Amino acid sequence: MPERSIGPVTARRFVCAEPITLAAGVTLPGWELAYETYGTLNAARSNAVLICHALSGHHHVAGYYTDAPKNIGWWDNLIGPGKPLDTNRFFVVGVNNLGGCHGSTGPSSLNPATGEPWGADFPVVTVSDWVRAQAKLADALGIESWAAVVGGSLGGMQALQWTIDLPERVRHALVIAAAPRLTAENIAFNDVARQAIITDPEFHGGNFYRHNVRPTRGLRLARMLGHITYLSDDQMAEKFGRKRRPSAGSYGFGVEFEIESYLRYQGDKFAGWFDANTYLLMTKALDYFDPAEAHGGDLATALAAARAKFLVVAFTTDWRFSPARSREIVNALVKNKHAVSYSEITSPHGHDAFLMDDHYYHTVLAAYLRNVET
Amino acid sequence: MPERSIGPVTARRFVCAEPITLAAGVTLPGWELAYETYGTLNAARSNAVLICHALSGHHHVAGYYTDAPKNIGWWDNLIGPGKPLDTNRFFVVGVNNLGGCHGSTGPSSLNPATGEPWGADFPVVTVSDWVRAQAKLADALGIESWAAVVGGSLGGMQALQWTIDLPERVRHALVIAAAPRLTAENIAFNDVARQAIITDPEFHGGNFYRHNVRPTRGLRLARMLGHITYLSDDQMAEKFGRKRRPSAGSYGFGVEFEIESYLRYQGDKFAGWFDANTYLLMTKALDYFDPAEAHGGDLATALAAARAKFLVVAFTTDWRFSPARSREIVNALVKNKHAVSYSEITSPHGHDAFLMDDHYYHTVLAAYLRNVET
Repeated sequence: MPERSIGPVTARRFVCAEPITLAAGVTLPGWELAYETYGTLNAARSNAVLICHALSGHHHVAGYYTDAPKNIGWWDNLIGPGKPLDTNRFFVVGVNNLGGCHGSTGPSSLNPATGEPWGADFPVVTVSDWVRAQAKLADALGIESWAAVVGGSLGGMQALQWTIDLPERVRHALVIAAAPRLTAENIAFNDVARQAIITDPEFHGGNFYRHNVRPTRGLRLARMLGHITYLSDDQMAEKFGRKRRPSAGSYGFGVEFEIESYLRYQGDKFAGWFDANTYLLMTKALDYFDPAEAHGGDLATALAAARAKFLVVAFTTDWRFSPARSREIVNALVKNKHAVSYSEITSPHGHDAFLMDDHYYHTVLAAYLRNVET
Repeated sequence: MPERSIGPVTARRFVCAEPITLAAGVTLPGWELAYETYGTLNAARSNAVLICHALSGHHHVAGYYTDAPKNIGWWDNLIGPGKPLDTNRFFVVGVNNLGGCHGSTGPSSLNPATGEPWGADFPVVTVSDWVRAQAKLADALGIESWAAVVGGSLGGMQALQWTIDLPERVRHALVIAAAPRLTAENIAFNDVARQAIITDPEFHGGNFYRHNVRPTRGLRLARMLGHITYLSDDQMAEKFGRKRRPSAGSYGFGVEFEIESYLRYQGDKFAGWFDANTYLLMTKALDYFDPAEAHGGDLATALAAARAKFLVVAFTTDWRFSPARSREIVNALVKNKHAVSYSEITSPHGHDAFLMDDHYYHTVLAAYLRNVET
């Protein structure tokens, strides 16, 4: 067992018989969320921390499965006994979002009306939908308010949305490598990824399940493209540069440069397991996220009702959601005189930095979380 | 006829019976280049300017065709009587590169050995190959040395290569919005575009011609992605932002944001006419371009033999080939004590700025070209 690991964990199911009507106007008659918990909920039920995942994340955030010891949670470097998010103090909850493909109700789940996978009929979900579903899970766990809601990227957007939609239920929000809304360029990258999937002949309009195929070509391209935006230009230059593969032929279209090998490997790996419809839904939730929109574009007004204290973290080389985007959030919070700490971490790792075990970054999170009362 | 237009022009064919052996080791037994000329070659044959095209460009650089008056050359704003590249003084030559799809020998041309289109068998071409082929055209036109070789982006790389490969034949090189070599990130974007094309089921390993189909899905994605890198983030934000299409539905995957509409339109338009194999070849020529490679990575050494004078131009918001990349070229020239002027143009238009009719940019080009002796 790795040092300070939370150790073996078990995925759980929260089954909700109460229907939920989503922003898209569609009602899911019954639904469920896959989740995990680490640490112990205290008697006052006041030490719970919610971890929100990003585009391709899920509820398996820390620890490992006994029957799959190499399947370690995606934020395991952050969460565990003695780690920055210390499970000796906190009761940590990881959850797979609605629309996901890791056990929560999503496009590959059976639609009770037809007995077949939802496929293209699964409704578009929004960040606010996720917050409402996560709140139902909190109810079921007896958690009235979260000590903290924590997330990076799309997960940070959920943390922010929690403070707006359910202000009394969040005491601290840790909004990491996020943005208050996507730019046209962000949306453009998402749309290319979506078009890659949708125009893959094996997508079958989203109903590929019944054809027993998967749009792996499109998913692979989407992931390759995504990876370019997750890394920094400098890091790519340092890690790959113009290096050739030792075995590479030349004057052809096989793998030749190391960067091609890396991207194609990442694309193939991802295409092998991720659900194409979930990918579409997650990117659309990103595109729609814009809490200021209902307030004439004014983010400060949108955040006026928030009651949480905030830690906003950005990374210098993140060009997907640059520090300038995080500062928009900080400025809107400051305008409201909300308590906010802001940390801009010098990191070469681009957007992916939020997942990395960076000493300074983890020190900042640990210091902030040490002052979060349980 | 638009003011100061060169007017109606005619495309010409240069047929070369002499075989050319390319860097890839393949010999084209006979080959041809489509080209156009504007203005008049003077008696001393000393006023010729070569225009090199970028990824999707061609030989139709200025003027229009009598039978297609709306088909105006891609750099018409620059070239014509009284324009910065003044056809009252200069004899301007536009050429479609080997491997192209606008009349020069390329993948859709017939392979004399089989009587069928070359398709996947057409060799990868390099920037140096193009320079050699263009030199044969110069020979045929009786042009011993170019007053100037001019190009933007991949065209700028050709101008640079001319000064290295045939230093006695170039008196001035105008290297615009270029770079001395691609970064890992540049190659990564190219590889995603190539993989989109190659994995399109209608690509048929490059031999789609004989199947009477075209890999339009892949080409469309490649072009959508390309467009993101041609524009600046700021310009996209200003032009499209998060604006919705008036007719857009919501909570679906149709066109909803204006930026989606723009990208898909550009992708569809391009996929309707461009040759997929040519797209692959052009991106590969970009990836391979690295004149410093043969000199231990030292660009100054690579440029030591150059005899031309240089104008290097970059645009502030170009993130495909940023001003820092142009300054690498400038520094290598300065190290050699070559004559070089450098202009960094403030423009919101990103990489595409080199094609735009920007007053300050055109003033810089006009001022430089006025001092080019004919």
